[in-house]
Amino acid sequence: MPGVDFANRMERAVEQAREAGLTGVLLTPGPDLVYFTGYDPVVTERITLLALQGSREPAMIVPILERPGAEGAPGASALSLADWTDGSDPYTATAMLLDPRGSYAISDSAWTMHVLGLQQALPDSKYVSMTSALPMLRAIKDADELERLAAAGASDDATFEQIRQVQFAGRRESEIAADLDRFLRDNGHSEVEFTGVASGPNGGNPHHETGERTIEEGDFVVLDFGGKKDGYSSDITRTVHVGEPTDEDREVYEVVRRAQQAGFEAVRPGVECQEIDRAARRVIADAGYGESFIHRTGHGIGLATHEPPNMVEGETQPLLPGMCFSIEPGIYLPGRLGVRIEDVVTVSEDDGRRLNDATRELQIVA
Amino acid sequence: MPGVDFANRMERAVEQAREAGLTGVLLTPGPDLVYFTGYDPVVTERITLLALQGSREPAMIVPILERPGAEGAPGASALSLADWTDGSDPYTATAMLLDPRGSYAISDSAWTMHVLGLQQALPDSKYVSMTSALPMLRAIKDADELERLAAAGASDDATFEQIRQVQFAGRRESEIAADLDRFLRDNGHSEVEFTGVASGPNGGNPHHETGERTIEEGDFVVLDFGGKKDGYSSDITRTVHVGEPTDEDREVYEVVRRAQQAGFEAVRPGVECQEIDRAARRVIADAGYGESFIHRTGHGIGLATHEPPNMVEGETQPLLPGMCFSIEPGIYLPGRLGVRIEDVVTVSEDDGRRLNDATRELQIVA
Repeated sequence: MPGVDFANRMERAVEQAREAGLTGVLLTPGPDLVYFTGYDPVVTERITLLALQGSREPAMIVPILERPGAEGAPGASALSLADWTDGSDPYTATAMLLDPRGSYAISDSAWTMHVLGLQQALPDSKYVSMTSALPMLRAIKDADELERLAAAGASDDATFEQIRQVQFAGRRESEIAADLDRFLRDNGHSEVEFTGVASGPNGGNPHHETGERTIEEGDFVVLDFGGKKDGYSSDITRTVHVGEPTDEDREVYEVVRRAQQAGFEAVRPGVECQEIDRAARRVIADAGYGESFIHRTGHGIGLATHEPPNMVEGETQPLLPGMCFSIEPGIYLPGRLGVRIEDVVTVSEDDGRRLNDATRELQIVA
Repeated sequence: MPGVDFANRMERAVEQAREAGLTGVLLTPGPDLVYFTGYDPVVTERITLLALQGSREPAMIVPILERPGAEGAPGASALSLADWTDGSDPYTATAMLLDPRGSYAISDSAWTMHVLGLQQALPDSKYVSMTSALPMLRAIKDADELERLAAAGASDDATFEQIRQVQFAGRRESEIAADLDRFLRDNGHSEVEFTGVASGPNGGNPHHETGERTIEEGDFVVLDFGGKKDGYSSDITRTVHVGEPTDEDREVYEVVRRAQQAGFEAVRPGVECQEIDRAARRVIADAGYGESFIHRTGHGIGLATHEPPNMVEGETQPLLPGMCFSIEPGIYLPGRLGVRIEDVVTVSEDDGRRLNDATRELQIVA
């Protein structure tokens, strides 16, 4: 992360915490810590925590054995480092960095053990989860992040171009998944996180796990895949048809395609997230498939595959330039078929811009 | 997990909670949930939680999209299943399973977001981390578990036999690590979690990450590797020497070997965990290297690579038959060399039994 200004990110977080009436933010290993320091230790039961607050300099505490790695982190020069030793109480040591009466937003995925330890060490301190207090902490992507997300999306697009040319009929879902894995890596992914292949009736369950079913002529096949490229996430879904579709197949597909397009066209700064969900959902409901679209329309994406903001009823957060999220409506007919189309989209100054652009026209595969 | 009696494990947990003065235990995805249900969903921001308590039947809540997977879990017949839907408040739904004034031990690695959500939904409920309240919840392994841990250990032993026959001098640490990865998989590991290779001066940092240093004649090379086999963890360390060792090399190695042996010989039911640490540490201190052994002597192992009990000063838990843990003393001379020897050991009715038995005599490699 050569171009990242970690000190600036830290300052903005302190400012956001202040505006939210909080003393500061506490970041633990995972996307939050990577965002502010570039440091990505293996998560263990041993506490590693970065404290950002207006009243003190940025400080990170790590297990003493991890100190050399932490000192080498890209953002290390912007913070002071503390450590704790095996056998001592890590929460007493961590509490030294905090205001005993402070109120902090803490990383959602921090181990419960750690927040309970801090509550005990500092009984007058208060904690709220990052997503409930400062959900938009990492939501507005800067130019460097947008470039990486676009490159990750382009890698997914290229993978779809390859996969739609392979043989489907007569092969197992797991074999198609292996192809996706290989293509994603060939296209620059350092990590493949999911290669969902749901064929025929399996597509009727939106959370079907890729299995050993043999794909047949006449199947829809939902392909949902992604991972990490240069630290940033990709996530795309395309649904292909094996051989000639029926009229009903074409109709269902077209409803989903129009729903995805309607969600996309609703994107512009100032629009509430839930409006994206409503725009996509309306198309599906109007076509009579409302009860077959049983999940939210989209989720934010960045260092993590799933992060705020969510495109879901009740989310009144207005879209802001630089936000990135998926738009992924679907229709699921249990035991029969499923169709889903998903692109990652970013908010520009005026409207939306797709970070995936593999064709959304129905592709017939062999 | 064909032979596992999940209902019995649940009953024992309820009993342990009662003895600790708690209402029950709350288990979230990871080793805890696998232990009680065999269910191993991908961890996401969406809460999945199993509640075990004396006053109610075992109940697990999952996101509605995960319900089909949860219904198929090996332990599903021993519990009732609830779900929550996107757009509803998952903590209100989870709170329905709990006693509003209850006190619960909750999985260490549960997302902080979830415990803060439960604290808000049920302000009179109380939570403690599993490790602080019921550290020994999964510590005593049954016969099936011991068999799996022994098989995982034997796979590591076989891997050491193979790696000590490869060429070291002139190759990079990362190349040796790739060999370890391949051998572990060949020997039945489904997952390789760490392949630490710390050569020459890199060995002086016990948390060195495998890098691109070229191994030279005269180096000690610390090999610390393991992963999962049939769901259970392996973890072994051996230190080899490239070419003929000096007298000092032999002396340092022999001190560590004797320390590891002393730790092992101290194992028997009723002995406090800290006595294992003391027994190993004493040998190193007596030889004048006390300040060069800068970590605990060992950690519990099972479904997770690191779990209670820890062999560390201050841990007064008595050893009990069926407990499994590592004994891994080391000497680290910064910038010069490192030596560590690690076996997984289990407590039998009378003493200790090693689950690793690759040779601990100093091996000279090419």
